[in-house]
Amino acid sequence: MPYVNIKVTDEGVTREQKAKLIKGVTDLLVDVLNKDPKTTHIVIDEVPLENWGFDAIPTDVHRAKQSA
Amino acid sequence: MPYVNIKVTDEGVTREQKAKLIKGVTDLLVDVLNKDPKTTHIVIDEVPLENWGFDAIPTDVHRAKQSA
Amino acid sequence: MPYVNIKVTDEGVTREQKAKLIKGVTDLLVDVLNKDPKTTHIVIDEVPLENWGFDAIPTDVHRAKQSA
Amino acid sequence: MPYVNIKVTDEGVTREQKAKLIKGVTDLLVDVLNKDPKTTHIVIDEVPLENWGFDAIPTDVHRAKQSA
Amino acid sequence: MPYVNIKVTDEGVTREQKAKLIKGVTDLLVDVLNKDPKTTHIVIDEVPLENWGFDAIPTDVHRAKQSA
Amino acid sequence: MPYVNIKVTDEGVTREQKAKLIKGVTDLLVDVLNKDPKTTHIVIDEVPLENWGFDAIPTDVHRAKQSA
Repeated sequence: MPYVNIKVTDEGVTREQKAKLIKGVTDLLVDVLNKDPKTTHIVIDEVPLENWGFDAIPTDVHRAKQSA
Repeated sequence: MPYVNIKVTDEGVTREQKAKLIKGVTDLLVDVLNKDPKTTHIVIDEVPLENWGFDAIPTDVHRAKQSA
Repeated sequence: MPYVNIKVTDEGVTREQKAKLIKGVTDLLVDVLNKDPKTTHIVIDEVPLENWGFDAIPTDVHRAKQSA
Repeated sequence: MPYVNIKVTDEGVTREQKAKLIKGVTDLLVDVLNKDPKTTHIVIDEVPLENWGFDAIPTDVHRAKQSA
Repeated sequence: MPYVNIKVTDEGVTREQKAKLIKGVTDLLVDVLNKDPKTTHIVIDEVPLENWGFDAIPTDVHRAKQSA
Repeated sequence: MPYVNIKVTDEGVTREQKAKLIKGVTDLLVDVLNKDPKTTHIVIDEVPLENWGFDAIPTDVHRAKQSA
């Protein structure tokens, strides 16, 4: 414990950024809930843009509109 | 809110089909629960056949039996 | 297959509304992906307001601001 | 986007602690990935001790051993 | 690693049964993948019958039909 | 019902091992909870090492330290 799942869109998250997220979330759980880093697991899922929708539209369509 | 995760087997779901699923689930949540599309997130996960099992057997084995 | 998880805030979703969500998502998966209703599973999770945050604030705090 | 799910054992996490987790994770995603807080959703699940196992044993049994 | 989530309907699973599931899944992961029990986490979620649907109908409705 | 999600690191799990996990978990749910294998679904997710962290560090970094 704890187990944290971070889902983000698959837009080139670097290894360094993933390491920062893993360290940042672990430190937060130590600070707020005094959890043991050794049993704190963090999994990052990277979701293709066409597989993530909000406001009834896939993200790749949102992105295309934004850059149109 | 809401957050909806749709897991299907990885069998060639097209972008258009994904867009229909995203729109259809969003519309349903508007109709039934009056949710705001802007804060309704939908994530589609496509799972390899050998990674999804039911009736104690992986799906790729089921498929092979069906087409035998 | 498929498996769909719907997470909504715990704000009094009725049995009838849950039944409509279950039927609506199942019908959508039949229409779009020709999935078999018999192997289509839908799970609805109802999350306490203080356990769901967006824009850096728990939903119960958002609700209190809205009704202030 | 993003969507973050934090699972912890159900051991009296207070509203203030939940608010700190929500703010802390949101700030981290802004700092590391420049994500928009408005579309960043965080859901905290609190799991009964007997429902969470590690090292082949439920957590309530671990706790009992620790305090024995 | 690994992390295993078991979702079942909320139909009176006992502590002993939960302990058996936790031990059984952990042993299986040792046998098949040689995983370390100490870092193997198992979470059991118990879902209300009206919140779990299959074949387009909530489970409590299925149960009522079966016992009619 | 039930639905089981097994998350492991992406380190070359073979088809045979996946089939053993699927069968083993299904048999366990039959033995302990008398569940119907036909409606028992199991999904295996394989997570890249840099996407899974514990003890505040990504697994690929842990592995590198172990083999240093």
